Amino acid sequence: MDLLQIETETKHYPVYIGSGIIGKLKDFLTSQAKPISHIMVIADEKVYELHGDTLKNSLPSSIDYSVFTVPSGEEAKTLKVYDDCMTFAIDKGLDRQSCILAFGGGACGDLAGFVAATYMRGVRFVGLPTTILAHDSSVGGKVAVNHRLGKNMIGQFYHPEAVFYETEFLRSLPLKEIRSGMAEVIKHSLISDEAFYKMLKANLKTLTSIDQTFLINSLKQGIAVKAEIVGQDEREKGIRAYLNFGHTYGHSLENLEGYKGISHGEAVMTGMIFALFLSVKHAGLRFDLSEFTSWVKQVGYTSEAAAKHSFDEIYEVMTRDKKAENKIPQFVLLSEIGKPLLKRINKEDLKEAHDYVLAVG
Amino acid sequence: MDLLQIETETKHYPVYIGSGIIGKLKDFLTSQAKPISHIMVIADEKVYELHGDTLKNSLPSSIDYSVFTVPSGEEAKTLKVYDDCMTFAIDKGLDRQSCILAFGGGACGDLAGFVAATYMRGVRFVGLPTTILAHDSSVGGKVAVNHRLGKNMIGQFYHPEAVFYETEFLRSLPLKEIRSGMAEVIKHSLISDEAFYKMLKANLKTLTSIDQTFLINSLKQGIAVKAEIVGQDEREKGIRAYLNFGHTYGHSLENLEGYKGISHGEAVMTGMIFALFLSVKHAGLRFDLSEFTSWVKQVGYTSEAAAKHSFDEIYEVMTRDKKAENKIPQFVLLSEIGKPLLKRINKEDLKEAHDYVLAVG
Repeated sequence: MDLLQIETETKHYPVYIGSGIIGKLKDFLTSQAKPISHIMVIADEKVYELHGDTLKNSLPSSIDYSVFTVPSGEEAKTLKVYDDCMTFAIDKGLDRQSCILAFGGGACGDLAGFVAATYMRGVRFVGLPTTILAHDSSVGGKVAVNHRLGKNMIGQFYHPEAVFYETEFLRSLPLKEIRSGMAEVIKHSLISDEAFYKMLKANLKTLTSIDQTFLINSLKQGIAVKAEIVGQDEREKGIRAYLNFGHTYGHSLENLEGYKGISHGEAVMTGMIFALFLSVKHAGLRFDLSEFTSWVKQVGYTSEAAAKHSFDEIYEVMTRDKKAENKIPQFVLLSEIGKPLLKRINKEDLKEAHDYVLAVG
Repeated sequence: MDLLQIETETKHYPVYIGSGIIGKLKDFLTSQAKPISHIMVIADEKVYELHGDTLKNSLPSSIDYSVFTVPSGEEAKTLKVYDDCMTFAIDKGLDRQSCILAFGGGACGDLAGFVAATYMRGVRFVGLPTTILAHDSSVGGKVAVNHRLGKNMIGQFYHPEAVFYETEFLRSLPLKEIRSGMAEVIKHSLISDEAFYKMLKANLKTLTSIDQTFLINSLKQGIAVKAEIVGQDEREKGIRAYLNFGHTYGHSLENLEGYKGISHGEAVMTGMIFALFLSVKHAGLRFDLSEFTSWVKQVGYTSEAAAKHSFDEIYEVMTRDKKAENKIPQFVLLSEIGKPLLKRINKEDLKEAHDYVLAVG
């Protein structure tokens, strides 16, 4: 078992990672200074089907619990599902001493965290991420639901009491989910540390048979990068924005695809190709872009979704991005691997990067 | 013009009260350290009809603004209206440097504050309360919308940048609104200070012709009580709960009436009679209850709504109150005027207090 301590301005909490750590959940829930009155599990329906029994066996018998299952993936992050969670919570009599468990991937955690942040103006929650991608969202306190006009437009900053990252759950992940999650791991390496990036590039050849030790190590390093940045800038006043590397363009693709078909990480990978092109052109990055695109293609990534939308459509969505100011989108670029910066780029240059993405496919 | 400084753990902000203070808004909005990119006014539709021109004349010409009107009163506090506000905000291109102005009574402020708290994970807002009742909600950072199963069930703690309390707007208040607001002023006196209470009792004979100086003084004292408590306990871990004097029973009535017909303050007044009865019986309060009920009746309050619902119905809603733990409701009682405490009361004793409320009508 590994333990990372997340330390932000407003909250300190532990992240436990490893095989079998779900067994520690019972003790954690029963040893709170303010006893927990009820537990509401908000569970991804597919995850619950596969691992619900394991979870139930990991809950203390001394605390009442109820389980509310939500649609898998981004479809959970609607105001409708949010409202349904609230109805369920009130019906089950959840009070301010209740605790919400987020059991699923990043979307489920975002939803459950926003429910926890706003139910009766805030109750406790614990993250039980079940995907690789969730190594990113389960740390840092960003919780949200989507609006039909934009991803994560409705949300808050709100931290869990703890995160239990049971790596056994990752064994059942479909290939698409592994692809999505590893893209964020690669992002964490690119914005932080060339050695981490090189380690990934040397070891990640295929997603169909990932070595467990390599995977756990990658997750730990990814979380450590995130924790370090969030510890310095909880509310995204400055460097936290660097975590959005690849995300402005990526979010636009997800939005235009209606959060279906393309996964978050797949979109971010395309967004990273876009941002790396801009970095070489406008931030002085020395980087073998074609080597990178060959590598990620070989690993299984594609930028097909970008070709389905015109640049103008994508641009329009980018101007509504949360980082945009006065409708001018900002981009995270790299001057070196591990050295991100924020830059506004004009529309013509963005179009050129978009054309590059289309060209490499 | 009067100025009160609200100082909580996480935020300091000014409350300006007086005739003509809306004229100061322009300067405030244009002199922010981080310039405001857009203004979105969330306005109570009735208030906007009466005072929209005054407001528009008080906005700086250098900042773009858009106005979104919402239904008057509690009908604004639904997830549907909340979603509509979000759609409008995104459509108008509001970014993180935007500022929301809450123009209306307490309900409008609660809604607008919750929109500000959660739009892109939080943008600035400024309160422009237009009712007496809003002297309460515009200070203290509680923002929320209602759920059909309970009032204020969905919300956050989130503070405005400033409050501009233009007392000229109060001249157009309908009698019902004056009645609603003065109930909270009376509550603030009962939980804090016998002299304040006696001043109100001596001067408040009718609501149809309230002296402006008396009114402004009452508001200032009411806000000062609230500010003092919130300054000590921002997130209702302790003494802030005292502000809920009369609210547990009052909220239940509002809920059962579907937040229509009965106003918040009218419900709270009935809740205060309920809580004063319990205080005399279970907290050693020495208080002439029949003198109190005669006074408030003469001023224009009635407890008719209580007779429309069975005790069991009311009790059921009280067990879902946010202050309830394990479905046992807690009540704010007084051991003396100005000395509140929290107490659980069993169902039989609550029934007795309910019967008293019915008896005095």
